[in-house]
Amino acid sequence: MARKPIRSDLAWSTVDRIVVRGKDLPGEIIGHLNLGDMAFLELTGKVPNEKESKLFNAMAVTLVEHGVTPSALAARLTFLGAPEAMQAAVAAGLCGLGSVFVGSTEGVAKMLSETTDVAKLLENKRIPGLGHPLHKPVDPRTRRLFELARETGHYGKYCKAMEEIAKAKNLVLNATGAIGALACELGLDWRAVRGIGVMARAVGLVGHLLEESRQPIAEEVWHRIEDEASSHLKPK
Amino acid sequence: MARKPIRSDLAWSTVDRIVVRGKDLPGEIIGHLNLGDMAFLELTGKVPNEKESKLFNAMAVTLVEHGVTPSALAARLTFLGAPEAMQAAVAAGLCGLGSVFVGSTEGVAKMLSETTDVAKLLENKRIPGLGHPLHKPVDPRTRRLFELARETGHYGKYCKAMEEIAKAKNLVLNATGAIGALACELGLDWRAVRGIGVMARAVGLVGHLLEESRQPIAEEVWHRIEDEASSHLKPK
Amino acid sequence: MARKPIRSDLAWSTVDRIVVRGKDLPGEIIGHLNLGDMAFLELTGKVPNEKESKLFNAMAVTLVEHGVTPSALAARLTFLGAPEAMQAAVAAGLCGLGSVFVGSTEGVAKMLSETTDVAKLLENKRIPGLGHPLHKPVDPRTRRLFELARETGHYGKYCKAMEEIAKAKNLVLNATGAIGALACELGLDWRAVRGIGVMARAVGLVGHLLEESRQPIAEEVWHRIEDEASSHLKPK
Amino acid sequence: MARKPIRSDLAWSTVDRIVVRGKDLPGEIIGHLNLGDMAFLELTGKVPNEKESKLFNAMAVTLVEHGVTPSALAARLTFLGAPEAMQAAVAAGLCGLGSVFVGSTEGVAKMLSETTDVAKLLENKRIPGLGHPLHKPVDPRTRRLFELARETGHYGKYCKAMEEIAKAKNLVLNATGAIGALACELGLDWRAVRGIGVMARAVGLVGHLLEESRQPIAEEVWHRIEDEASSHLKPK
Repeated sequence: MARKPIRSDLAWSTVDRIVVRGKDLPGEIIGHLNLGDMAFLELTGKVPNEKESKLFNAMAVTLVEHGVTPSALAARLTFLGAPEAMQAAVAAGLCGLGSVFVGSTEGVAKMLSETTDVAKLLENKRIPGLGHPLHKPVDPRTRRLFELARETGHYGKYCKAMEEIAKAKNLVLNATGAIGALACELGLDWRAVRGIGVMARAVGLVGHLLEESRQPIAEEVWHRIEDEASSHLKPK
Repeated sequence: MARKPIRSDLAWSTVDRIVVRGKDLPGEIIGHLNLGDMAFLELTGKVPNEKESKLFNAMAVTLVEHGVTPSALAARLTFLGAPEAMQAAVAAGLCGLGSVFVGSTEGVAKMLSETTDVAKLLENKRIPGLGHPLHKPVDPRTRRLFELARETGHYGKYCKAMEEIAKAKNLVLNATGAIGALACELGLDWRAVRGIGVMARAVGLVGHLLEESRQPIAEEVWHRIEDEASSHLKPK
Repeated sequence: MARKPIRSDLAWSTVDRIVVRGKDLPGEIIGHLNLGDMAFLELTGKVPNEKESKLFNAMAVTLVEHGVTPSALAARLTFLGAPEAMQAAVAAGLCGLGSVFVGSTEGVAKMLSETTDVAKLLENKRIPGLGHPLHKPVDPRTRRLFELARETGHYGKYCKAMEEIAKAKNLVLNATGAIGALACELGLDWRAVRGIGVMARAVGLVGHLLEESRQPIAEEVWHRIEDEASSHLKPK
Repeated sequence: MARKPIRSDLAWSTVDRIVVRGKDLPGEIIGHLNLGDMAFLELTGKVPNEKESKLFNAMAVTLVEHGVTPSALAARLTFLGAPEAMQAAVAAGLCGLGSVFVGSTEGVAKMLSETTDVAKLLENKRIPGLGHPLHKPVDPRTRRLFELARETGHYGKYCKAMEEIAKAKNLVLNATGAIGALACELGLDWRAVRGIGVMARAVGLVGHLLEESRQPIAEEVWHRIEDEASSHLKPK
């Protein structure tokens, strides 16, 4: 059977060279790019200019730490059972970044990459990126991110469309909505956008696991919940 | 039963405020810290100064992209079956960052946090962070990272110890060895050090999944390997 | 804030008793139920009768082992990096059981739980459970499973509907299609159906990891693919 | 470079045949083996005889359901964020089956596969499989499993050794200790033993996710814990 070729353009190395995305790793990346710039390089194949760097890093840091989320709890509970495998605890935490939480950034970017016609967009039954249980009428992250977008010349049609939609719906434009729009402004492929949240949360989850190793909560959470959950079943 | 308190110091929010590690997220973090700085804040509770930022970001970007590793392949093969759940594909890729690959950074940091007495260290049967199948006699990443360590005033006893050990063992000091030592120079808790690799690879894995969505290899890998693996069993 | 109660009806224990789903674990389960029966109990709250046991176990064993699948490869590649954490390698393998592979059982069960009107079902653009790249015109697993369904009195309207659909579409009714239909015949909740494949594959993945520990292939897969994937980038 | 062959002996298929571990899947497995037997076949290459089947299934069902464990909570919290990816929620739950919980079965089997000399074994600093926070002085699962071992002619030197050790240490021989010993009696490779717990819990986790989809607790757990965890940080 004829075989298809297998190709990846991301990296190669020889005895004395390591090249990532066409850049010499020791000579052009290490000491030159910060972690957010490196992510931008991975997602676009280009080193960001100063403005892109500022905005992309801002988007990423926004998503790093949201306190004791379901994802952070899952990671901590996993670490309780397998402290020798921190990577698996981070992995467990990431598994929940689906349609309900971080995934909405992708939904916004995908939607806007199809059209920015607000009237058309408003025909959608469910529009991602809107509403927040706590931060209303304004999500302070959105305000700050759009301020940076203006500063760096990236406040354009995608941001405008989301702001108009939020206004029309009388809902707050939340941080995932802002980030989805900004990803479009930066020309990112919508298929990479959920990944911004995934990588950012990986950073935050390491923080949670370090805290868990010093100031554990998972065991207490477990005992409380288990006791309550089964108390109606036990003989009195 | 008396209960233990449940506490996390990482973040809190109210209607109009979001505070992470004691810093106002919109006011002091977004637009001010890059993603590596944010990771440093998560791991130490402190915003890095310029030199720490440069070195820590350098360490992190070193670990982002190593081409088609087992971890990247696992992520791509997972994505083939569940393209709707990119987060789970990243998670699958992270699960393999254990004792054999990225975990050695942790081993080095733990070892050096116990002693930097080279004679004592050389008594260990297995010393992590040494040797490389390809990059010898010098790992170009180590050279570059230690150059930056000198530049930023972080080349100290931990780096020296590892260099002496590598010399005594006549083995290359690889990038994970260098990063383990530098983590100690920066005062990071050894329990967080594997996490630097985990977060960095999360970034790289998103890059692989984006490439997989455009230029897939997983299906071809699967068919080739499956065919070869079972060909001796099939009737001729 | 008023709190909602937290309740789970699955299990409870005291010093000398352990009760699962209302059954005494040592007295009524261990030594009485096989692993498939136990799964049935978990999913329905009932111990299966002999016929249900036979059919449900048949469905589950069908999905255990499919050779070197993408999922098995992901597990083996993960194990290469973290052999100390076999559970994480199984987890990595499971992460890919999404919409493309095992998930189609769920699709079939959900579809049939809404209607068994074949004319209506044929209006769907995409019908899951049909077609197979290799097994045609008959999937031998489907034939066998439906034979058992007849034997145990569980060949009913769901099986019939799928067979008619396959005929109308001139496609093979594959094993996931048969299992989706049989799950409906057994009265299982469609939301549990993907889980049959997930648990079955967990069994198979342990088999793969045991083989990998004795007769490894992951490292060779990695080297071959990495070499080929980056060969076009390297200087000649 | 010369390549190593890639081989797996687990399964093969052609247009009309599917063979797993040398057995015809439709003809010799489906309808003949229950899920535990299939697991035994995967782990040993042999179909269990009636006694082996009884004992192995008993071991596996013992580990399926332990109520609201950290692992079950991690799965449920993951499902809250990604209900479309049940497989990833099961995966998250499995990631925590490490050294602290289920992994001890492996520790016992490995230890006993090296020696059954009780005096020597007692020299070990830490002996896995002993002690239980709740079930004392007897773990009712151990009693039942050893009863079945006697019934099926599998109560031998491994079981005896563990019972003597427990007596000497004045600790309860818990279910994981019993299962580790029984795995040795059945001739299982110690490297497969953690896998028995992993596959069993995969079954149980599907049960938890089905219950979570009907009677959710994850969101309430999250809100309670998040509120308490950060209450000391918030302005009064």
